[in-house]
Formats: sequence, structure tokens, C-alpha cells
Amino acid sequence: MRSYDSGNIFARILRGEIPSPRVHDDAHTVAINDIHPQAPTHLLVLPTGSYIDFDDFAARASDEEIVAYVRALGKIARDAGVADSGYRVIFNVGPDSHQEVPHLHAHILGGRALGPLLTRRD
Amino acid sequence: MRSYDSGNIFARILRGEIPSPRVHDDAHTVAINDIHPQAPTHLLVLPTGSYIDFDDFAARASDEEIVAYVRALGKIARDAGVADSGYRVIFNVGPDSHQEVPHLHAHILGGRALGPLLTRRD
Repeated sequence: MRSYDSGNIFARILRGEIPSPRVHDDAHTVAINDIHPQAPTHLLVLPTGSYIDFDDFAARASDEEIVAYVRALGKIARDAGVADSGYRVIFNVGPDSHQEVPHLHAHILGGRALGPLLTRRD
Repeated sequence: MRSYDSGNIFARILRGEIPSPRVHDDAHTVAINDIHPQAPTHLLVLPTGSYIDFDDFAARASDEEIVAYVRALGKIARDAGVADSGYRVIFNVGPDSHQEVPHLHAHILGGRALGPLLTRRD
């Protein structure tokens, strides 16, 4: 089994070791802006629990954590004003997805018309 | 409030009106193969409940439905053999995302190295 690396940048942000303004902050979920935004709205939604990725979360998180995270994701998108215009939620898991930080994060992308599901070079 | 259109193709598949082999089938979640796959593994994961999109699901689904759907998503990817190599989960919500069918569905994409988060023309 893979083990969680508590030195990753999102873990450090969650512990307050690296300052990052929080768009949303509750017991189970924190949202921040992506520092390299790829759309007018580009948020990262992090569970406060230590989960490597979606696979780890789906297997190990408690029922309470799962419900809180999903409901917060919906609320964060609504609060960002993209629920009516539309948005995309992306979870990258493991090597083939190019996941960059080994702490589960959802990308919420919106604020303009997005392109196809995958890139043209795919 | 938007209302759910029970004539959409995924609703018809869930009711068995249109045949579609099921990769996964339980009380809360059904998975099928995308008919226009964009990767060696391209699954669509549908809740059996009537939810338009992720926004609708996050707001209206029961705690039980949310937990069942998230755990099934993880299991379906593991059963497809992409949990170690990696995969991407995508939810399209509303106009800007080009959501095509108004019944919540997660895309699970994997089986090869995927491209960047968004397309180059984005």
C-alpha cells in the first residue's frame, strides 16, 4: 500500500506552514485558487484528511468525510458563481493522469466555454 | 429550479429501454463503456437516481447515495485495472462544460498517458 507523504505542498498549506488564501474552509474541506489558473475560475478543493488521491479517498475515507467533501464541492462551485454557466470537475489519479501533488484535490474549472474532454494530442 | 428530463439516453439505458452492457451494476450505481471512447479505458459512471449533473447531485442526493456513488467510482476504476497506472475522473456540469446528456455521469479515462488538464485551444 502506498503511504501518504505529509511533506507535500497541500499538506503544508492545510497546516498553515505556507500561506494561501482560502476560498472555503470547514472541518473537512478547504478550497484555494490554483496558482497557475487555466480558466477564469480555477479552484482546488482539498479534503483536510490525508488522502493521496481519489482512489485512496474512495477506499479509506469515512462516510462523513465523503458526504462533506461532495457537498462542499457543489457549494464551492455555486459560491464561485459558475453553477449556472457551467464548470468541469477533474480528479487526476496517478502517473497516467500527471497528478502533480500527492494529496487529493479536485480541480473546478469554469468562467468560460471549456474545450473537449481530452486534449487534441491525446 | 431545473427539472430532470426522464427521456434522456442514460435514463433510458438505466430503465433497460436501450440495451447497454453494464460493467458495474448495483442499487445506486451503473457503469457502461462510452460508445465513443477517447482512451483505452473510457467508462461512464451513472447514479441510478435522477440527477441532472454534479451540482444537482451534491445538493439533493441523500448521504447514502453520495457514499455509495463515490465508493463505486473508486471500485469501478480498480476493477478496470487503471488504479495503479492512473486515471482521470471528469464531471461536466452545464453549458460551459459541453455536458451532453442531462443525467449525472462521471467519465473515467485511463489506460494510457493522458494529456494536460485542458485542451491547447483553451
